[in-house]
Amino acid sequence: MLGREYDQVCSIARTLEVLGERWTLLIIRDVFNRRRRFDEIQENLGIARNVLATRLTRLVEEGILEKRAYQERPARYEYFLTPKGLDLWPVMMSMLHWGDRHLADSGPPVLIRHKGCDGLVDERGCCEACGERLEARDAYTQLGPGAPAQWRKRAAA
Amino acid sequence: MLGREYDQVCSIARTLEVLGERWTLLIIRDVFNRRRRFDEIQENLGIARNVLATRLTRLVEEGILEKRAYQERPARYEYFLTPKGLDLWPVMMSMLHWGDRHLADSGPPVLIRHKGCDGLVDERGCCEACGERLEARDAYTQLGPGAPAQWRKRAAA
Repeated sequence: MLGREYDQVCSIARTLEVLGERWTLLIIRDVFNRRRRFDEIQENLGIARNVLATRLTRLVEEGILEKRAYQERPARYEYFLTPKGLDLWPVMMSMLHWGDRHLADSGPPVLIRHKGCDGLVDERGCCEACGERLEARDAYTQLGPGAPAQWRKRAAA
Repeated sequence: MLGREYDQVCSIARTLEVLGERWTLLIIRDVFNRRRRFDEIQENLGIARNVLATRLTRLVEEGILEKRAYQERPARYEYFLTPKGLDLWPVMMSMLHWGDRHLADSGPPVLIRHKGCDGLVDERGCCEACGERLEARDAYTQLGPGAPAQWRKRAAA
């Protein structure tokens, strides 16, 4: 319970109020990775449909995702990050790099690179090569040394 | 359930396996804020003692915190961040700033400043004034515009 006034008056605690549940951050990760449709996210995460529906609704209510119809009958939506959602990119980068550094014995499963110069993006969301301070739109993802063989096969196909 | 191979092979998912529970990150926040003793953290968070004990044990096992005895009979410990734990500082800074920006209508409850030049630390853990890329040891905390009156009274006393 985070009910005490003292704890609420903290921007980390408030952020965790919104995001502090593993699925929520993995859903946001998936949308950053351009998985935009319910079924894509559901299949990728193996999450129960009702849980995913609840989390997506919450993220739209919080103004982190917005949904846009791509089909009318039946109505189907795609999810996009709002500016508030895109502002989570430094959180994603810092968590990704911590995991790469401390929890990835075979090396990073994915590498994030700067579109401008192909340099690696560091844990601050800056380019290791040219030093530029980047945003989500400036970066792309490629398979890293820790990617499973299965991913490589799929990428090669 | 994060049981599917696909999801595990992601440094964000792995990081959330270790940290993906609100208390865990708030405990780490408290240790960054130099609350080192069980009772200090327990009182600050208002967390059940058994829950706190479990989380602290886990964080020591994961190599994020280390405990050092400060008293022998009865044995009492203080908790310190290991290098692996200190590496979470960019995660803390990015989450703090996201909350400051999007969830703090009265302004940031605390400000993080660069010890070297007193500039504000940004969401990348860099100094806004001099541009230096900082680590936890380079920064200090002060009350911000969103701090409750009660904190100011306590700080003035």
